[in-house]
Amino acid sequence: MSNPMMEEKVFKDPVHKYIYVQDRVIWDLINTKEFQRLRRIRQLGTSFYTFHGAEHSRFSHSLGVYETTRKIISQFERRHDSDWPVDQRLICLCAALLHDVGHGPFSHSIEPVFDVNHEDWTCRIIMGDTEINRVLRQVSDSFPEQVAAIIEKRYQPEIAVSLISSQMDADRMDYLLRDAYFTGVHYGTFDLERILRVMRPYQNKIIIKESGMHAVEDYLMARYQMYWQVYFHPVTRSSEIILRKIFRRAKQLHQSGYTFGFMLPSLQQLLGQSLTIEDYLELDESLIQLAFKQWMKEDDPILRDLCMRFLHRRLFKYKILEQIDQAEIEEVEQNLRDSGLDPDYYMEIDFPADLPYDVYRPGQIGDKPPILILNERGQLIEISRKSDIIRSISGVQLGTHHLYYPEEFLYNQ
Amino acid sequence: MSNPMMEEKVFKDPVHKYIYVQDRVIWDLINTKEFQRLRRIRQLGTSFYTFHGAEHSRFSHSLGVYETTRKIISQFERRHDSDWPVDQRLICLCAALLHDVGHGPFSHSIEPVFDVNHEDWTCRIIMGDTEINRVLRQVSDSFPEQVAAIIEKRYQPEIAVSLISSQMDADRMDYLLRDAYFTGVHYGTFDLERILRVMRPYQNKIIIKESGMHAVEDYLMARYQMYWQVYFHPVTRSSEIILRKIFRRAKQLHQSGYTFGFMLPSLQQLLGQSLTIEDYLELDESLIQLAFKQWMKEDDPILRDLCMRFLHRRLFKYKILEQIDQAEIEEVEQNLRDSGLDPDYYMEIDFPADLPYDVYRPGQIGDKPPILILNERGQLIEISRKSDIIRSISGVQLGTHHLYYPEEFLYNQ
Amino acid sequence: MSNPMMEEKVFKDPVHKYIYVQDRVIWDLINTKEFQRLRRIRQLGTSFYTFHGAEHSRFSHSLGVYETTRKIISQFERRHDSDWPVDQRLICLCAALLHDVGHGPFSHSIEPVFDVNHEDWTCRIIMGDTEINRVLRQVSDSFPEQVAAIIEKRYQPEIAVSLISSQMDADRMDYLLRDAYFTGVHYGTFDLERILRVMRPYQNKIIIKESGMHAVEDYLMARYQMYWQVYFHPVTRSSEIILRKIFRRAKQLHQSGYTFGFMLPSLQQLLGQSLTIEDYLELDESLIQLAFKQWMKEDDPILRDLCMRFLHRRLFKYKILEQIDQAEIEEVEQNLRDSGLDPDYYMEIDFPADLPYDVYRPGQIGDKPPILILNERGQLIEISRKSDIIRSISGVQLGTHHLYYPEEFLYNQ
Amino acid sequence: MSNPMMEEKVFKDPVHKYIYVQDRVIWDLINTKEFQRLRRIRQLGTSFYTFHGAEHSRFSHSLGVYETTRKIISQFERRHDSDWPVDQRLICLCAALLHDVGHGPFSHSIEPVFDVNHEDWTCRIIMGDTEINRVLRQVSDSFPEQVAAIIEKRYQPEIAVSLISSQMDADRMDYLLRDAYFTGVHYGTFDLERILRVMRPYQNKIIIKESGMHAVEDYLMARYQMYWQVYFHPVTRSSEIILRKIFRRAKQLHQSGYTFGFMLPSLQQLLGQSLTIEDYLELDESLIQLAFKQWMKEDDPILRDLCMRFLHRRLFKYKILEQIDQAEIEEVEQNLRDSGLDPDYYMEIDFPADLPYDVYRPGQIGDKPPILILNERGQLIEISRKSDIIRSISGVQLGTHHLYYPEEFLYNQ
Repeated sequence: MSNPMMEEKVFKDPVHKYIYVQDRVIWDLINTKEFQRLRRIRQLGTSFYTFHGAEHSRFSHSLGVYETTRKIISQFERRHDSDWPVDQRLICLCAALLHDVGHGPFSHSIEPVFDVNHEDWTCRIIMGDTEINRVLRQVSDSFPEQVAAIIEKRYQPEIAVSLISSQMDADRMDYLLRDAYFTGVHYGTFDLERILRVMRPYQNKIIIKESGMHAVEDYLMARYQMYWQVYFHPVTRSSEIILRKIFRRAKQLHQSGYTFGFMLPSLQQLLGQSLTIEDYLELDESLIQLAFKQWMKEDDPILRDLCMRFLHRRLFKYKILEQIDQAEIEEVEQNLRDSGLDPDYYMEIDFPADLPYDVYRPGQIGDKPPILILNERGQLIEISRKSDIIRSISGVQLGTHHLYYPEEFLYNQ
Repeated sequence: MSNPMMEEKVFKDPVHKYIYVQDRVIWDLINTKEFQRLRRIRQLGTSFYTFHGAEHSRFSHSLGVYETTRKIISQFERRHDSDWPVDQRLICLCAALLHDVGHGPFSHSIEPVFDVNHEDWTCRIIMGDTEINRVLRQVSDSFPEQVAAIIEKRYQPEIAVSLISSQMDADRMDYLLRDAYFTGVHYGTFDLERILRVMRPYQNKIIIKESGMHAVEDYLMARYQMYWQVYFHPVTRSSEIILRKIFRRAKQLHQSGYTFGFMLPSLQQLLGQSLTIEDYLELDESLIQLAFKQWMKEDDPILRDLCMRFLHRRLFKYKILEQIDQAEIEEVEQNLRDSGLDPDYYMEIDFPADLPYDVYRPGQIGDKPPILILNERGQLIEISRKSDIIRSISGVQLGTHHLYYPEEFLYNQ
Repeated sequence: MSNPMMEEKVFKDPVHKYIYVQDRVIWDLINTKEFQRLRRIRQLGTSFYTFHGAEHSRFSHSLGVYETTRKIISQFERRHDSDWPVDQRLICLCAALLHDVGHGPFSHSIEPVFDVNHEDWTCRIIMGDTEINRVLRQVSDSFPEQVAAIIEKRYQPEIAVSLISSQMDADRMDYLLRDAYFTGVHYGTFDLERILRVMRPYQNKIIIKESGMHAVEDYLMARYQMYWQVYFHPVTRSSEIILRKIFRRAKQLHQSGYTFGFMLPSLQQLLGQSLTIEDYLELDESLIQLAFKQWMKEDDPILRDLCMRFLHRRLFKYKILEQIDQAEIEEVEQNLRDSGLDPDYYMEIDFPADLPYDVYRPGQIGDKPPILILNERGQLIEISRKSDIIRSISGVQLGTHHLYYPEEFLYNQ
Repeated sequence: MSNPMMEEKVFKDPVHKYIYVQDRVIWDLINTKEFQRLRRIRQLGTSFYTFHGAEHSRFSHSLGVYETTRKIISQFERRHDSDWPVDQRLICLCAALLHDVGHGPFSHSIEPVFDVNHEDWTCRIIMGDTEINRVLRQVSDSFPEQVAAIIEKRYQPEIAVSLISSQMDADRMDYLLRDAYFTGVHYGTFDLERILRVMRPYQNKIIIKESGMHAVEDYLMARYQMYWQVYFHPVTRSSEIILRKIFRRAKQLHQSGYTFGFMLPSLQQLLGQSLTIEDYLELDESLIQLAFKQWMKEDDPILRDLCMRFLHRRLFKYKILEQIDQAEIEEVEQNLRDSGLDPDYYMEIDFPADLPYDVYRPGQIGDKPPILILNERGQLIEISRKSDIIRSISGVQLGTHHLYYPEEFLYNQ
């Protein structure tokens, strides 16, 4: 099916040095317009307002997940690991490459407002009338469906799923390394090559040899640090809050029949929550940024002001709340109203732990298999039962409440 | 003037680790809307189509030039170098930070088509009715004019100019390191710390101690490699050519009275070459990308097709021409016409050496002072007279002609 | 006292890039024969048998501790921190540079056998008739005594002591980074520049700003990993055990009046535990290695064999003991005796936690002040009370018992 | 022959991250006492006096040459390159690992004085009554002879020779990267992974694809810089000169019948130039350093003084000679004699180009095949005919004369 005769192609990549493409299908997928669109969607959404280097796209991350998967499988093949089903190579590579193809612009902020789910969109794009679908069908008629099944974690053998969706999968390994590289925050660095060496296919799972336990500890600490240093950074949260409020305001205006000074068809469909695939694929960060720039001239003062805040980086400030005091919050709301500001759009209580990111909590995250260690007696043990460090991270109650509000609003008068 | 009492602020930066802001003026300039706009303009234009990591913005480069300048001056001050005019510190830092603030989207492609010059725009923004101008005027009424004088290289003392505009200035040093980091091409790496150690203010110039000659050789080799590996990469050239052709087509359509299905006021002013500062500041890469996406639905088949090629990365292929054979070229043009393609928009002969980038050629580039070595006898010597390596690069005739054309067009039939 | 007029000198250093020497006293100390001798003593003793890159000397580490201290103080001075006693700069730099000058060859193995203490020897060398003493006395007559007081942690103000002797001092920070670099184990890497930024002198202590807590966590995790990946590596322990047994055998032979085929005066004094300063300074790793090579021809079969094992890297193997079972051990001893091997020299039960290295356990290590966080309300808090991660490491019972024995000896027969 | 069933073993290596051992023969060779001895011989001789990080051993370099060779072959195998003779894999790996096994302590200084040649000794050790010979003979009786034939460059097919001995072989590639890493001089860094990708076996040669020309330029510039920044550093030359003079003095004393206060049998054989293999293998840097330390107490004032200078790093100073002026030199010699110093031992005119290292000069170095580029028309072209940069380096007359003399001797009186 795959055409391994294609001359190997490479992409220069700062994280993996090179990304090697050895199959015509992979090459063709990369060159579809749906995949190229990922160049216009940033991997870390608004994080560039906190870390100016974080301007990398989901395109580069997707290539990185593909490459990490290719390396893992290549180790299995080189060692002739008997528990690795060799006929799963190509489908795993395709799923790895495509797993994020349904992401829209600023997904973390857009998804909750418009009830969009990027995983659903990934499958719709794979199954729909798209260039990606046509490339996949060249392998076989059922191939698109199979790739979608991996994305939706209902594929068998499940080892294929766990390569790109588990507590230590190719997705996470690439994004930790990549986000660390582009933000310049080195905490996310861990020894990928060593982890690749201790991963093994075993009874339809990916497990870790006991000698690799410290490498996994290091990976999980990198993850812990990245969550608190980067993904949950209060300045990033602040920009995401403003973004969500812009979308909520625009949606509310749309519902109330407001006539926008600037509008585009695909944006209209987003606000009305009636997107076709074609509309969805038109959405990217250049469209959102342009719309916000135009909306700075809208009649609606809230929309106008929030867009200006976002584009000119006049973000909300924050205050850490040791506890939620309802009386205090009501006072703040009243103060905002007294200043003519609607608390719905100018205040937010945020608790970082409720992001789609998560630290390692086995048992709580149903769909992400835990990390298993294979000891010398052939037993599989969940890693937090072996490692004191990991047990400590797993049990920790994470996060504190933050109150976000406009800088010019004098909080404690 | 400067307010050094401000608590030091830092930006995390992958290239310099940290960027230190110690003056209120610098902090305020960074927070102006004109400077924040640089986040929406990529440092390397279309290079992200060749090197997917090259998604970094002029915002991050501008901070980097500022930081490099700050480090150079800080060395001069620490050593109490007598030839350094200490009262020039703040103005140099401001000019370093702002030197690229007039860049528009995809400058290399837009500027020749619309006769725009980013240096002029930098000065207009500094001198105009802008937030930047207001911040600068807080230092003194004449301060904006002085900063503009550095940008235009007519400032005295000229040592202040040479910090950000010479054959080895803070601008070049930052972009080589930064572009190398984000593309992942390590060739651009050189030992910045060592070069900082051997730079000296001397008789109103920045010179290099003789012991630093090999470090400068290394810097110039990094530069040479970056030009040929990155800046002149044929795939990047190809995307720039398409971009230029899109702009030329849109301008031509505009002049002929064509009605665009999608238009925005600032874009209109660009096509008509009658931009105000306000219009100009609205132009950024999100606007251009959005416009191109909309123009994929235009009536004009050339504009429509070129925009599709750009956004979906269906770039022109190229062929190296050992020499320009007029008859051969005419044949190609005729073939194109036979296929219904206008050679003006579907063919280009490119000779990379005529870019605004240049390798080190003393004497030929009037406005960039050469690199001078101060030997132990107190003599100043132009570096290519001391170093065989540099002499060799200086004299080399660079570049070959490339012919660009659509892939589907069968060239040699 | 110090002569800051000396032209700055630099050493190229892989860890800190450059080491800057700005004082004549420091330069002169580096050039004494006692300091140059540190080139012949490896920083990590026998670890090069486990990590072949770990061939770096105490000379390079000592320069690194000096440079780290210089950077810390330089930050204090640049910010004009009021709690930093500016007149302590030179003495701190000297103590940092000299703190390891009393180390002998393979200290960890030699010290317990011959009751030698490198800290005592550091002070004897500083106070004795040495080049180092003469250089220090050029500052003032009491200067050597003051430097020795820092080494012995009885100096006032105690902030000077804590720079080179606390849970996060210049010594540890350099060795973690350096040992990580030379072994190639990246786990020991942390963000030194960030830690320097959050360190503050405060009420005669070095404390950490609250915003730096995650950076300290990262440092402590680096430390934890280095202990278990490098310092406690069972292969390194094995080589240290053999080394100790060689020294014990030689000492025992010396006491019993054995005539060595090869002997040197200083070595004789070591065995007899009657070393003068001059003898001590003759001891280095070239002498020990040469002696072992000669002792491979001794009459005593145990000494001969152990030396061969050490030099040719025929180390003892190990077995992890889940618990100490006295009966099992006695059986092993009996088996060894049956094979003609003396258990005193061919077996060892090792428990890595009893090394001079330690992980962070506040309260248990009397002479190392804990890490204190200064919160925004001006309170000092011991870090493990703020950080779940650190609390977890602090409380962990570390280490397991290992049984070491010769490979050819079949253990479980 | 080879036993690929052995479980893969790895060494942690700072340069290549990991070194992979997949053959029992390689593993057994590493564990021979002759190979372990390379741990006691520094890769860069006396360079640690200039770059304190340069304490790495020939043991680590030898592993690195092995690993580089393994990677090259592994690429050939993975691509099924038809011009690669697959049965040559194991012999190439063995030769790569062993190519430096005949190095003695401080070879560059010892070899010219005692007419020793490390390549001859490598072959004697491979062919002699050694552990290495016994391991190799397990492959086949003729195997040691074949390995020796590669070392002596008389093996067929010659492609096997060129892997470890050509202008861009595994030996050079490892030492440039390794020496750059341990000195901290980044100039020696180049993109090994890219070079591996463009190397091809072709008609019994290793050639480079045309697309890799810039990568080769970068490699050769790295080499050029390392020669002038590291290998020819005047301070290193100075320490080598003193070392040579010590050996010459000791040899001369030995010939004149002088009775040394300290002597060892193998050292005696060295001075008398009558070394057996067993003697030779006893020589290492610990022996030389110990002997010098003892010789600081000799009766002969010249030997005593030179040894003290070497161990305490009291090196000769130098003066650059623009030209050799015989009268000037005679005057210096006379001045030395007037101060009671023998010019034979206290002065040297050095011209760095006459080291065993060389920059790229095709045609002049008979035994190192030049670098060939395979262009798209299938022609082989020597690289300096394609690259202006390389042509420039090739033709450059390198080096200047330096005059070395004791610091305390006032030269220009």
